[in-house]
Amino acid sequence: MSEHVRQTEPFRWEGIAVKPYKAEGAHFAGITRQTLFEGGDGLACQLRYFEVAPRGWSSLERHQHAHAVMIVRGASRVLVGDRIVEARTHDLVRVPPRTWHQFQTAGDEPLGFLCMVDCERDVPERPDAAALALLRTDPAIAAFIRI
Amino acid sequence: MSEHVRQTEPFRWEGIAVKPYKAEGAHFAGITRQTLFEGGDGLACQLRYFEVAPRGWSSLERHQHAHAVMIVRGASRVLVGDRIVEARTHDLVRVPPRTWHQFQTAGDEPLGFLCMVDCERDVPERPDAAALALLRTDPAIAAFIRI
Repeated sequence: MSEHVRQTEPFRWEGIAVKPYKAEGAHFAGITRQTLFEGGDGLACQLRYFEVAPRGWSSLERHQHAHAVMIVRGASRVLVGDRIVEARTHDLVRVPPRTWHQFQTAGDEPLGFLCMVDCERDVPERPDAAALALLRTDPAIAAFIRI
Repeated sequence: MSEHVRQTEPFRWEGIAVKPYKAEGAHFAGITRQTLFEGGDGLACQLRYFEVAPRGWSSLERHQHAHAVMIVRGASRVLVGDRIVEARTHDLVRVPPRTWHQFQTAGDEPLGFLCMVDCERDVPERPDAAALALLRTDPAIAAFIRI
């Protein structure tokens, strides 16, 4: 990438493609991905921007790698482990290793968040029936999660 | 840190200290540092927030590690290598390895930017007389740099 990449309209950047969140699947809704910094050449991490439409949600998943998230547009309800947090613009969310998590848009505005991850990372795991049953023992989480 | 860290006032976060930009020196002006994500525990990078007052500037330096920067408040004039770029809110700036760089506030608003870096990184180098003379062969850069 060039040394300077301009924002061309809100949360869109010159030369950075708006891509599908994941290659395939129906375990997420209304979400796109833009890779702001690919990593490599002196950086062990990537920085991605995800945008989630109103009523959209990211995949319910966990993995060994951590996520470092900053909300930059709108607001989110986020499952992190056994908590559901209400995160607003500029709030930070840390997803520790091996922790179930899901981001959902809160309110009528799109949700946009930055997510920093290691370039080398493991593949996310989705919950099997046993993991879902365990998650659903908490009524608030049972009502929250989308799969 | 907790899984959820709230912004308490614009660009200040609960439990995150506003620290000096560097431990000592007079080769910078009007700049503070907040470490939003420390790295470790599944993250090879840190994410820092730097804020530069009007007429302030960061150190003119270079190093082997790269910087991945997003402006999130105000605007900046940035030296990156042999270019001076005008970066506005949400623009991205990439500082490649071994590249002279300096961030200066543009305009009357504070400049705030996120900067992603490897947790393990080399110590910045400041220009010696020969490096300064070389930088100053470009009149625009000679007029720009603060040391």
